[in-house]
Amino acid sequence: MKVEYINPFISATTNVFDTMVGTELHRGVPSLKDGYQPSHEVSAVIGLSGKARGTVVLSVDREVAIQVAAALLQEQPDGLNADVADAMGEMANMIAGQAKAQLEHLCMSLSLPTVVTGKGHCIDFPRNAMRICIPFSCGWGSLALEVALAESSDSTAEVHQDVMAAQTV
Amino acid sequence: MKVEYINPFISATTNVFDTMVGTELHRGVPSLKDGYQPSHEVSAVIGLSGKARGTVVLSVDREVAIQVAAALLQEQPDGLNADVADAMGEMANMIAGQAKAQLEHLCMSLSLPTVVTGKGHCIDFPRNAMRICIPFSCGWGSLALEVALAESSDSTAEVHQDVMAAQTV
Repeated sequence: MKVEYINPFISATTNVFDTMVGTELHRGVPSLKDGYQPSHEVSAVIGLSGKARGTVVLSVDREVAIQVAAALLQEQPDGLNADVADAMGEMANMIAGQAKAQLEHLCMSLSLPTVVTGKGHCIDFPRNAMRICIPFSCGWGSLALEVALAESSDSTAEVHQDVMAAQTV
Repeated sequence: MKVEYINPFISATTNVFDTMVGTELHRGVPSLKDGYQPSHEVSAVIGLSGKARGTVVLSVDREVAIQVAAALLQEQPDGLNADVADAMGEMANMIAGQAKAQLEHLCMSLSLPTVVTGKGHCIDFPRNAMRICIPFSCGWGSLALEVALAESSDSTAEVHQDVMAAQTV
């Protein structure tokens, strides 16, 4: 996974939160993530396929999910319900869609989003696909975008270098 | 989602369990599923895109996941670890791959699988995508395959993406 593949996801995330729900995100330090680490309580998962295969997971605190839905739907949801899940799926869809547009040469298309809820759930990727976790925070709480994108020539060494480079972007 | 899209997923599931891990599945009655119903403890999610966009979720009991991994890897895993997650991702990949081959006219390709673990986690699909749940049982426990597949003209998601992408140009 190359650094030029990560930045479109970072800029898409900050842009979608800014334009769609009026919230400024502060980015933390990207890292490689492995093993079973609990995700935030709500995770929207969307698949990418084309000249690269990948997965994007937008994982957010319960309160972030509820406030995102309130802002998108212009109505306060009564807890973590199907409206909130739909809103989170749509956010992941827009983020992946914008990133895809910036990575036009990979000719990727998107799957339908699925939304996972549950305290302490973990999301694991195949070990041969390096996964990069980009943490963010905002006034509502914290969230993270996790991206794995595999081309046939990927190697672990490249990913380590690219994550280091991404931190300086 | 058309009924003729479901049978390839059913036959792929029984075939992959039979040929890859030597286990006969007994199929229950397919149903439409909505709302927050807890999934089995381990869910492998894989995205489909092409002339139809979709998601496939293979959701299994903890014991089924462990025994599937043991059979695939020829080694007993010490609990619900990364080997088990990889094995479940690979099972979902093979099931979606076989179903895709039977639905050749939809020109679909697969995303990377992700594997969700956690007691009581729920997986939600967009409400505009009809989701079909096919329950199965086997000697190790119970499992289910959930499929949502929307032909491109069924979905407004791509339009949203394109609008969003256009706004950032």
